[in-house]
Amino acid sequence: MTNNRQWLLESRPQGSVTEQNFRLAEVPLAAPADGEVLVKNEWLSLDPYMRGRMSDARSYVPPVAIGAVMVGQTVGEVVASCDERFVPGDKVLTQLGWQSHGIARGGDLVKIDAERTPASYYLGVLGMPGMTAWFGLFDIGQPKAGETVLVSAASGAVGSVVGQLAKLHGCRAVGIAGGKAKCDYVVGELGFDACVDHRGGRLYDDLRAACPDGVDVDFENVGGEVLDTALRVMNLHSRVIVCGLVAEYNATEPYGYKRMRAVLVNRIRMQGMIVFDWKDRYGEALKGLGAAVAAGKLKYRESIAEGLDSAPRALIGLLRGENFGKQLVRIA
Amino acid sequence: MTNNRQWLLESRPQGSVTEQNFRLAEVPLAAPADGEVLVKNEWLSLDPYMRGRMSDARSYVPPVAIGAVMVGQTVGEVVASCDERFVPGDKVLTQLGWQSHGIARGGDLVKIDAERTPASYYLGVLGMPGMTAWFGLFDIGQPKAGETVLVSAASGAVGSVVGQLAKLHGCRAVGIAGGKAKCDYVVGELGFDACVDHRGGRLYDDLRAACPDGVDVDFENVGGEVLDTALRVMNLHSRVIVCGLVAEYNATEPYGYKRMRAVLVNRIRMQGMIVFDWKDRYGEALKGLGAAVAAGKLKYRESIAEGLDSAPRALIGLLRGENFGKQLVRIA
Repeated sequence: MTNNRQWLLESRPQGSVTEQNFRLAEVPLAAPADGEVLVKNEWLSLDPYMRGRMSDARSYVPPVAIGAVMVGQTVGEVVASCDERFVPGDKVLTQLGWQSHGIARGGDLVKIDAERTPASYYLGVLGMPGMTAWFGLFDIGQPKAGETVLVSAASGAVGSVVGQLAKLHGCRAVGIAGGKAKCDYVVGELGFDACVDHRGGRLYDDLRAACPDGVDVDFENVGGEVLDTALRVMNLHSRVIVCGLVAEYNATEPYGYKRMRAVLVNRIRMQGMIVFDWKDRYGEALKGLGAAVAAGKLKYRESIAEGLDSAPRALIGLLRGENFGKQLVRIA
Repeated sequence: MTNNRQWLLESRPQGSVTEQNFRLAEVPLAAPADGEVLVKNEWLSLDPYMRGRMSDARSYVPPVAIGAVMVGQTVGEVVASCDERFVPGDKVLTQLGWQSHGIARGGDLVKIDAERTPASYYLGVLGMPGMTAWFGLFDIGQPKAGETVLVSAASGAVGSVVGQLAKLHGCRAVGIAGGKAKCDYVVGELGFDACVDHRGGRLYDDLRAACPDGVDVDFENVGGEVLDTALRVMNLHSRVIVCGLVAEYNATEPYGYKRMRAVLVNRIRMQGMIVFDWKDRYGEALKGLGAAVAAGKLKYRESIAEGLDSAPRALIGLLRGENFGKQLVRIA
């Protein structure tokens, strides 16, 4: 029988993640017990939240234990099943993490329709990133047609969906991204009205120019100076969705935000979000996102790292903003 | 005829407010024109927002012009009226500012019932501070019975009402105040469950001890380190009402808030408020607050500076936290 190859957390990062924080292990593959399903993973999703799970700072879920398999969503194929709801060949969405195979309880798997859309989409535009964009924008941001929606990490898995949904909703969509290539993609391919390069060295002036009527909704994926500067162009009664603070994740000291006065003066509503809070409503988002994808109204790009071995390097690149679109690892 | 004595804004403060920022002037008293009312001011309200109006930094209303009368709410008595809705002797709430008399359009005055409650209460518990407490706590904070409500500047005009309303609502009320005398008052007189002295040098530990179940609602009047520390004890899905940042008002550099990660991880909702946004609903708050005051369920303390001349010193003291309860100036 094949062995199972796994990436284990070897040590907690001090500051930036390094490849030495991971260790590759190979263990014999077990057989599924009653009620369990053996899955061969095909796609692994890499996401910024993983940086948090590597650390033991207080967070919304416990950290990955040292020596445990790194967590993550995958899409895979059922190889053997002791749960009558699944048969070999079924494509499933799993929480099996960074490994070539895995055994899950049937109840923890979600069957997906890989005929209608590529299986990997269930890790991106139709998965957690898409859900995050949907509920963050509509439930917290509550944009009205004609308003300006600002999105940082605009070419990323979440940001690219946020901006396109904002456009479909009748808003002006302005992105923030790192570098000219990403900004060109955000405007030229995704159809945002404008995109500001946060590496350009004049973020405030560029944001002012790109948002002549100010910003009504900021969908924040980056934090740090990007968020602090965005707060300077936010309108009266505007909303900030605090979805990610990737600029802070690798930093050893937290960033000091200097614009609390703007929150007061402009009566800004700022709200943290984790998509799990909407888990009872995923179907609602899936319906809306699926229809938009099927109609060709939601463009979507994947950045694919080849082979399970590449996972640590790909995560490090993601945290540095080197990916372009949704970061995946093709496992098999 | 009497002269009108007025405090004018002489210069904008650099950092802390000084008496040299004001100039006392005496001008002849004009007679009211058609539709106008001449009012003799009796009480002037002093409030932290006045610091903002002295500065020309961008805010929610334009600054006071150099050479103009300092703004503020007053309660006064009608002396002469060319508006049929008012007769001499009527007690009115005005926006006439720091002066002994003033002429207002009848439509800008609100008649008050000074028989039922002392006239000065309309500047405090039944005025803007009371309204601020009411709408901030209930509309933004949305406390549920059994939850913990934290209030900074707890002995102040707004904070004292917030904590007592929270108690009436079935919550645990915890105050933050400066010094033992204020903390004793907050617990002993106002009936809060606990009060932490922010001058005690161990704010985080003291907050943890005073809030064993964490904090569900933070009604923030102070900002700076007080807010940044409060963010460390906020619960999942908790709310922060950003009502005042008095710790920052006199500072030349804005404070750098380091706990944005807590906003994300705990999905905290943080919202700025200015009570004017509820002006169409003042009646609702007045009804609730009036009933509580009449029933003796809302204790209220005033800090009275004697004579119009004392207004600058009293405002400086207020910004330093030297007042005890609602700060008023008795003009006549």
